[in-house]
Amino acid sequence: MNRNFKNVSHIIFGRGCFDQLDEILAKKRQVLDSFMLFLVDDVFSQSALRERIPLKAQDLLIWVNVDEEPKTVYVDELTQRTKDFSGHLPEGVIGIGGGSTMDIAKAISLMLTNPGSSADYQGWDLIKNPAVYHVGIPTLSGTGAEVSHTTVLNGPEKKLGINSNYTVFDQILLDPELTSGVPAEQHFYTGMDCYIHSVESLNGTYLNAFARSYGEKAIDLCREVFLDGGSDSDDKMMMASYFGGMGITYSQVGICHALSYGLSFVLGIHHGIGNCIALHCLEEYYSESVSEFHSMMEKREITLPQNLLADIDTDKLEKMIDVALLLEPLWENALGTNWRRVMTREKIKELYLGM
Amino acid sequence: MNRNFKNVSHIIFGRGCFDQLDEILAKKRQVLDSFMLFLVDDVFSQSALRERIPLKAQDLLIWVNVDEEPKTVYVDELTQRTKDFSGHLPEGVIGIGGGSTMDIAKAISLMLTNPGSSADYQGWDLIKNPAVYHVGIPTLSGTGAEVSHTTVLNGPEKKLGINSNYTVFDQILLDPELTSGVPAEQHFYTGMDCYIHSVESLNGTYLNAFARSYGEKAIDLCREVFLDGGSDSDDKMMMASYFGGMGITYSQVGICHALSYGLSFVLGIHHGIGNCIALHCLEEYYSESVSEFHSMMEKREITLPQNLLADIDTDKLEKMIDVALLLEPLWENALGTNWRRVMTREKIKELYLGM
Repeated sequence: MNRNFKNVSHIIFGRGCFDQLDEILAKKRQVLDSFMLFLVDDVFSQSALRERIPLKAQDLLIWVNVDEEPKTVYVDELTQRTKDFSGHLPEGVIGIGGGSTMDIAKAISLMLTNPGSSADYQGWDLIKNPAVYHVGIPTLSGTGAEVSHTTVLNGPEKKLGINSNYTVFDQILLDPELTSGVPAEQHFYTGMDCYIHSVESLNGTYLNAFARSYGEKAIDLCREVFLDGGSDSDDKMMMASYFGGMGITYSQVGICHALSYGLSFVLGIHHGIGNCIALHCLEEYYSESVSEFHSMMEKREITLPQNLLADIDTDKLEKMIDVALLLEPLWENALGTNWRRVMTREKIKELYLGM
Repeated sequence: MNRNFKNVSHIIFGRGCFDQLDEILAKKRQVLDSFMLFLVDDVFSQSALRERIPLKAQDLLIWVNVDEEPKTVYVDELTQRTKDFSGHLPEGVIGIGGGSTMDIAKAISLMLTNPGSSADYQGWDLIKNPAVYHVGIPTLSGTGAEVSHTTVLNGPEKKLGINSNYTVFDQILLDPELTSGVPAEQHFYTGMDCYIHSVESLNGTYLNAFARSYGEKAIDLCREVFLDGGSDSDDKMMMASYFGGMGITYSQVGICHALSYGLSFVLGIHHGIGNCIALHCLEEYYSESVSEFHSMMEKREITLPQNLLADIDTDKLEKMIDVALLLEPLWENALGTNWRRVMTREKIKELYLGM
């Protein structure tokens, strides 16, 4: 059985296309007293971008804080705030920010039409009702959240995505200019998310020609950006992110993401840097890519934190292993159906203690 | 202004996924006495594929003849036949075949909901009403018709597409197994459509990073298929076709396609071979690609017809030039806004007489 996946319905790409957002939303503003919900990374609360957001008097703008990765309780809280704002649902939810902000926008658009807590839907195909029309506008490139079928959340028990065709954005707006002011380290770690999930996809057992074509080009573009550089790097990195996300549609991530999820859940380490910390120790599994990754680090003058888990409590380490082991499709993709024979708790502990 | 383009809504890719068509259509069969319209290339009328089409008693199957490229009169005739079949419109239109069949399916799905003749809509954004739900299932790879925003038709006066966001398929089913029995020459000429429109796109002035990423990978895949070969060539060529089509979304074809349209309209030469005949004479504009194209021809043992226009009537030649010159965006993409200074009627005549 092959997956019949839902694509992002509308795409606009180009430098400066953020200024077309007003016109795009105008077509969706059908009822006089309706409103749009803008969820914007609070890093922009004092920026020039703030003035360019096509906010109308009746709209709701929430500055989203993503110092910590998105939690289900935060999604539930913002969903309730939106419901309390008006007697009816918004006509659209617009997420402007990095992967975390886009994930929050996707999750809220789903939770506005599905009862209960977002934690109830962490898993695969648990969502029953279509989301509110939702728009993704990345200001950071690499996560692939703009095209992916998931919204990754930290719940009370686990870090896991809400994976569903309904999660996919109805519209994405890809304006490379929005990513130009990103600090060098963040640019690198977020870009490496794309590189790493493409590496895991191409080395996985789930791969088909669809995923391979997208994954290979995502890696080519990452090489151009991080090894060569150049004035069109923002444009290329935006496409790499999009291609990396599309590649995952027909494949899966692998060992690095599984371990990184454990780091995030227990230590609150952000996904991008968590992936880099994990990949650094995975020469045994992805040797050529680890070596290329080291060249990119060197070229971009990035120094990774080391010995992070040297003094970790046993309880925390065990919890980290629990979280990583929950991600069965990732392990199966990386190591085949008999992965449990190879990837024991002992082995995972050894990998974590090397970080 | 950047284009906000409509994407294909649902995609299924994989060997054997044709057998999932029944299940996909079942979700669209909502009314008891509704029907689906299947438009299938008549080359399959005696094939094993015929028995695998999930046809129900109430459905209409039309075997489509594409010995000639699709004409607006043919589209109008089949649209009328569908309207006469039942008191209501079909719930879906499913095209199974090469680029011509997919274009016919797209055009009929549009003409079922838009009044008048399909010839009235040849151009850009002339369609007013959304199409009937339509599904594209390619059995040949290379045209990109499965993802493009156009349906190219020969009208009373011109060969030109119906270009619209509404033209885009709602669902595509990409099963590389369906393309396995294609004769070598047809495989080559159709594959070269992808190679050639990607070359024109990458060498054009309209190019952006979106189009470049797709176009470059389409060419890489064509190289793997036509220079290296290999058992997964059908899978790769299907992805090349999809990538080539996606690339054109944010760019345009160029000189080769403009000349090839003239050849098709006046001499009835099919698009794939017409492109190859034209590219062969365009060393002046696309020199490296023409040389690579010759290597591919050699490797695949393809011999092009030559001296095709040696004895052509002046009237026909002039008409050919008229048809080519109509395609203003193609010339502008290839040669810039001042293209008329360079590409005179005389110059086009010279190029045609070299074929």
